Parts: sequence; structure tokens; C-alpha cells
Amino acid sequence: MQVKERCKLFLKEVQNHLHKELIPFWLTHGVDEKYGGYLTYLDRNGKPTGETLKTLVCQARMIFTSSSAHRVNLGGGAFLDIATQGVDFLLRHFWDKKHEGWFWTCQQDGAPLNMSKLTYGQSFAVYALSEYGMASGDPRGVEWALKTYDLLQTKAADNCYGGYYEFLEQDWAKKRPGVYGGDRKSFDIHMHLMEAFTNLYEATDERLFKERTCEVIELIFKRILHPEFRTGLAQFALDWTPLQAILFKDVWGSDRDVDADEGRPLNNTSFGHNVEFCWLLNHTITTLGLDVAPYEETMRKIYDHCLDYGIDWERGGVYCEGPHDGPARERNKEFWQQAECLVGMLDAYLLFGDEKYIDAYEKVHRFVMDHMIHHAVGEWFPLFDENNNLLWDYMGHAWKINYHTIRSMIQSEARLSRILAQ
Amino acid sequence: MQVKERCKLFLKEVQNHLHKELIPFWLTHGVDEKYGGYLTYLDRNGKPTGETLKTLVCQARMIFTSSSAHRVNLGGGAFLDIATQGVDFLLRHFWDKKHEGWFWTCQQDGAPLNMSKLTYGQSFAVYALSEYGMASGDPRGVEWALKTYDLLQTKAADNCYGGYYEFLEQDWAKKRPGVYGGDRKSFDIHMHLMEAFTNLYEATDERLFKERTCEVIELIFKRILHPEFRTGLAQFALDWTPLQAILFKDVWGSDRDVDADEGRPLNNTSFGHNVEFCWLLNHTITTLGLDVAPYEETMRKIYDHCLDYGIDWERGGVYCEGPHDGPARERNKEFWQQAECLVGMLDAYLLFGDEKYIDAYEKVHRFVMDHMIHHAVGEWFPLFDENNNLLWDYMGHAWKINYHTIRSMIQSEARLSRILAQ
Repeated sequence: MQVKERCKLFLKEVQNHLHKELIPFWLTHGVDEKYGGYLTYLDRNGKPTGETLKTLVCQARMIFTSSSAHRVNLGGGAFLDIATQGVDFLLRHFWDKKHEGWFWTCQQDGAPLNMSKLTYGQSFAVYALSEYGMASGDPRGVEWALKTYDLLQTKAADNCYGGYYEFLEQDWAKKRPGVYGGDRKSFDIHMHLMEAFTNLYEATDERLFKERTCEVIELIFKRILHPEFRTGLAQFALDWTPLQAILFKDVWGSDRDVDADEGRPLNNTSFGHNVEFCWLLNHTITTLGLDVAPYEETMRKIYDHCLDYGIDWERGGVYCEGPHDGPARERNKEFWQQAECLVGMLDAYLLFGDEKYIDAYEKVHRFVMDHMIHHAVGEWFPLFDENNNLLWDYMGHAWKINYHTIRSMIQSEARLSRILAQ
Repeated sequence: MQVKERCKLFLKEVQNHLHKELIPFWLTHGVDEKYGGYLTYLDRNGKPTGETLKTLVCQARMIFTSSSAHRVNLGGGAFLDIATQGVDFLLRHFWDKKHEGWFWTCQQDGAPLNMSKLTYGQSFAVYALSEYGMASGDPRGVEWALKTYDLLQTKAADNCYGGYYEFLEQDWAKKRPGVYGGDRKSFDIHMHLMEAFTNLYEATDERLFKERTCEVIELIFKRILHPEFRTGLAQFALDWTPLQAILFKDVWGSDRDVDADEGRPLNNTSFGHNVEFCWLLNHTITTLGLDVAPYEETMRKIYDHCLDYGIDWERGGVYCEGPHDGPARERNKEFWQQAECLVGMLDAYLLFGDEKYIDAYEKVHRFVMDHMIHHAVGEWFPLFDENNNLLWDYMGHAWKINYHTIRSMIQSEARLSRILAQ
């Protein structure tokens, strides 16, 4: 089959899932009708589990996703309402009036619980609030995104080694070293800062945020990507010396495979983060009006590394992690890596025109459509093993919500349509 | 003679000059009685030349010096009035209401002239306003110093390579490359940021500014000081690649010796900046409560480099510049290097207890007392050649004012007294 014919079939499935399953699910799940904001713990049937912790990451991601869905005319206005009440709750309860910035977690009624300032969460606040501003025209969106930007600069920027401190106390003091994270920097957070600053630039058209975004890109290229393989290293000392990745006390994902005290091997990279970084970078390049040429070689290397070692060509899907130069080591299949690989592989095809990226897309697409999506409910399962056995089955959690899934389907639909229009 | 006996004689001369010449001069010169602020162009007799350009550097330095003099009980209250009216003028005219930050120059009546944002000037605003806050208790001092700090962070920090951009347009966009300075960083500015952030910390007791100051110190140690000789390199690309120092369009000094297009030799360092950096660093270490040990070796190397190559052991005084590893090349004797070396050599003696620093002090002290000071008027001449022939004779200019001279005498008096009290 020709690429276009293949993509036509993919598009049909993507659209069916997005419009008939995901969107209906999220128009009816997640909003906290009692206090406002979002309740994100949902069991395998999408039923609230009764857990009520509200995390900054999930509140912000729900705002982002609802706003972004509204921007592409999904939900007929309902997503804007969902986003607006989320912003109301966020501003009312998550903002630290004493030290400024956003708390890490709150209780259901908004009482602050973990008042730490994590750059990851601040970054998602910028991303979500600027998206909300663009979706709604509500001036609070950009206003509070700008406030958050200012705080990142005045309280969290490292003016010696570049980049940003990541794990900070309520008063923005660096946390203790080690598992508290005060002495580390990461790919994850700097990638999401690129994403957030790009959105802030799109929302404001201010040169300043274009420049700030370019700085983060340069930082990632100089300090974070492997000098030879160009795949991402996960964690660093504050001076950007690469370190073995450890688990932190405050987390926003379900890392499972670190049982050694010293952390993961140094020769280790995340297929999901790598490919997510590439397509986000390409989006940034377009949004900022940059020339793509200086970045192509790196993106090609990253995509090919994922093709060579990340994709399960036999059973479908993409593995979690592995060395920069060999087969995957952590071979479970997690939802968010699948979501990002779908977008990434289509982006790679659009950039380089090589059908092998469509082949890789198909392997992930089939796995997602045939295994990962809980079609009867409308959302994705979080985790399978390498043989495609379901390991975890909830629909929502403290960090799993619709950010990866809806974004992946919206972005895949757009890219498949572009391929078909070529 | 014993060190103490020598220092007793030095102190007498220093006190005589400070209390009988410098202070009386500056209690009666410099204030613009018509518009407020300061008129800093004074001829060899201390008479206003009629030039009325007001530079941010001189306005801020007059505020700093007057405030610092008041803090050590000089002037009987008059210096506080001199500072306060300067702050009034600065806030009324130099603040850019549109893009925020401080203009580079204004006309006598305060109409803005060069509206560029130069980090050097912003830095001196932080230094002066925090000093004024400590001298006066006027909350505007710290308030506007904090505003300026925020702007440095949000508009001028380089989040990729660390440090700060230096030459910015009115709207904080980087200036063009080359002589406009948009693609360079310098020792000069980062040293003065250390000085400014230290003062902001002293004025606020906020952990944040201690950390920011430590970042600048680490940056200077890692990127700016010569890896072997530890003397300072002057100019860098934004990524801290050392560059030959060129003259810029907007200046704040009387650099004279660059006639080649490519600038000064790369193997070149400023005795004045080096020694000024050392004693400022030591002041910072004390103010922040840091351990001096990790910095001693560097400071010793810098002081000894000045002793070996900077001091004119025959005719007195200190030369301007020369290579990191050999005799001085630019051998004129300028006022500010003398001023900084006086303080520095006493600091070196207090740190290391080696009488050779008192010998060096004496060489500069005698030159200052016997040649540089225009005793009949009360201020210092700006420039002599290496044979101690007077080259320039004004008392005040766009960048020469009482900052170096009064500070030098106050700080020397304090250090000489400490030696005598030992």
C-alpha cells in the first residue's frame, strides 16, 4: 500500500478514537463538581476512585488539554467551561500568596498539602495558562503565565551554569541533595520549559520569550543530548555533569525500574522523551519561525535510535528506556511513550519523507488501537509488559490524565491530514 | 620601621586627605542645584565645565558614595540629603516607564537621551539604591533595587551559558554585535554584579541574593579568571569563549590603548580590575558569611601578579594593563586603579600577613599622595604617564566621580585602623 492509503486508514481510526471515545469521555469525566478543579483518579471503568489529591501537574494538564481541544473546535464550547473552572480553582487555591508560585499538591477543597515549588509544575502552569489565554481570550491566562515566568527567572534560574533549578522548597530555596533533587537538573524539565516558553511566545508574540526558548534549545543541544548519539541524558549535576538517574521523593510519573541505590545506568535514554522532544522542537521551530536545517541531523539521529532500539517491531508499541547504543533495557510499554511516538513518527515522515517512519508509526498505532486503548471506556490503559500483557489498568491518576492522549490524537490527526493533503 | 609604625603614618595621610580634602570637596561640589541629581563635569579647579550630560553611572555612583559616607558618619547628615535628592532625580527621570529599567543617559533637566539598557548601569543602580536604603531607611531604596534585580533576571540573564547579557536596547533586545556589544560578556560587568548583589543581600538579608551572589562568584572563577594564572580575562563571546577586548560604542571609562581593529591582545589583564575584584570578593565573603579558604589561592595569585608586574616599584603607583605572565604593557597610571590597589593591598596584608603587600601599598600610597591628589582642590587627577607626568587634569567627568576616591579612602582608613588594632 502507498503511504497515503495507509495514512487514510490510520486517520480513520485516530478520528474515531478521538471524536467518539476520548472526547466524549473527557467531556464527562474529571471535573470536581463539588469544589471545582479536577479529580483525576479514575479506575479501569473511568469511575472516580475516591482519591482526592489534586496535583499541580494534573490540574494544569487538564487546563491545557481542555483549552487546546477548544482551540481546535472540539467539545462545542464545553471544554472552555471545563478549562475556565479549572483556572478559577488553580488561581484560588494553588497560588502561594506568601512566597508566590504554585503549590505542588492540594487537597480536594484546595487546602495546600505539599507546598514545594517544583519547576516541572511551574512550567506546566506556564504551558496551561498561556494555552488557556489563547483559547479563551481571558486576560488572566497570559497574566498569570507571565507572573510564573518572572518567578522562574527571579527564583529558579541558575545564573552560573544556565538552565533552572528544579526541586525547590516553598520559599524557593533549593531542596536537599539526592532524592530531594536540590542538586540535580534534568532533560525532562528543560524539555518542558521549551514547550512552555514556546506557548508563552505564541500567546504574547514577545521577542523575549522567543529568545528564552532559543536559550533552552541551545542548552539542551549543548548539555543534555549525548555528544555522539544525540539521544537525551536524563539527569545532571547543577554544572551539567551527567549523573545516573535516581528516583526522587516528589515524582510525576510511574518510574519503576530503579532498584539499585546508585540509580539507572549512565548509558540510558528514554525513547519517549527523545521522540517527544523532537516533535516539540519541530513545533517550536515552526512557532518561532526558525530554520529547521541546523536541527535536522539531531532529530534524524534520535528518531532512528528509536526505530533501531525502541520500537517493538514484532509485537508493536515502543519500549521505555535503553542504552544510547543498543537494544532496549526497560521493555515495558507505557501509555505516554506510545502517545508521543505516534506524533513523533508522523513528524519524522513529514520532515524526512522516509517511509520507515510510517512503518514505525504503524507498529505503535496498532499497539495503541489494539491494546492500549480501553475502547469500552474511552481512555488508555497506563502500562503493559513487553509481551503486551496488561500490568496496570486505571484510566486516571495523579499524573495520568488526558494531556498525552488527547494531544497525541489531535496532533496525529493534523499530521495524517497533512500527509494526505500532500 | 615596623608595619604598624608605617601604617600609622599612612593612616594619618589617609585621614587628612579624606576628612580635610575629599569630604569637604564633595560636600560642596556635584549637586545640580537647578534640576536635582548631579553635574559631574568639573575642571582641574573643581569648577563645573558647563557640560550637563547626566550618566546613569555617575548619578548612581554619587548616590552610592554619598550614602556610604553617611553610613560611616561622614558629613553630619549632609550626605544623606545629597543622596536623597539624587534618588529623587533618578526615580523621576531615569526610569523607563514603558520598558522598565534605567536609561543610560539623560539631559540636565532629565529628558532621556540614550535610552539603552546597559547591564553595567542597572548593576550600579542596584548597588547605589541598596546602599541608599541602608543609609536612609527610605523604603524606596530597597524597593527599586529589587525591581532592578527582577529586570536583570527576567530580561538580561542568559539561561543557556549563565551570566548576563550586557548591551541591550531600550526594550531589552540585545544590541548588534561588535562595537555595539550585543554578542559579548565581560569581567567588568560580572564583577560589579557581584558587588551589587552583595549589597542587595546586606540590605535585605534574603537568602536569594546570597545564592545569586555565589553564582556570580562561581561564574567568575570558572569562566572569567585565567585557568592557570587566575588573573581576569576582559571580554568573552556569549558562550564564554575568550575574545580580544575591543572598545564599545557606549563606554564608561577612558580606555585609550586600543588602536588595532581586533582589539587588545588576548594575553592581557587589568591590574586594577583584578585587585578590585579581590577585595570586593573578600568583602562579599565576609558579608555572606562564606569560608575564605577556597578563594585564598586565587586571591594570592592575583595580588602577587600585581606585585610582580603592575606596581611601579621605582616611581610609585600601579600601571593599567599587561599580559597574564609578564611586565605591564599599558603603563599609564590612572586614578581608579590606584584607588582600588590601595584597598586591595591592605586587604592582602590582612589576609596573608606578608609585609610585601604593605610595601606595594606604600608604592601606590606615595604616588597617590604625592602626585595623583590635587590637594589644593581636594580630588584626584585622572591620568599620569608611566614617568608620573600629568596627562589629564579634570576633577570630574562622565564616569569619574567620587566613587573610587572616597570609597578607597574610607576602606583604606578602616583597614589601616584594623592593622593598628591587631
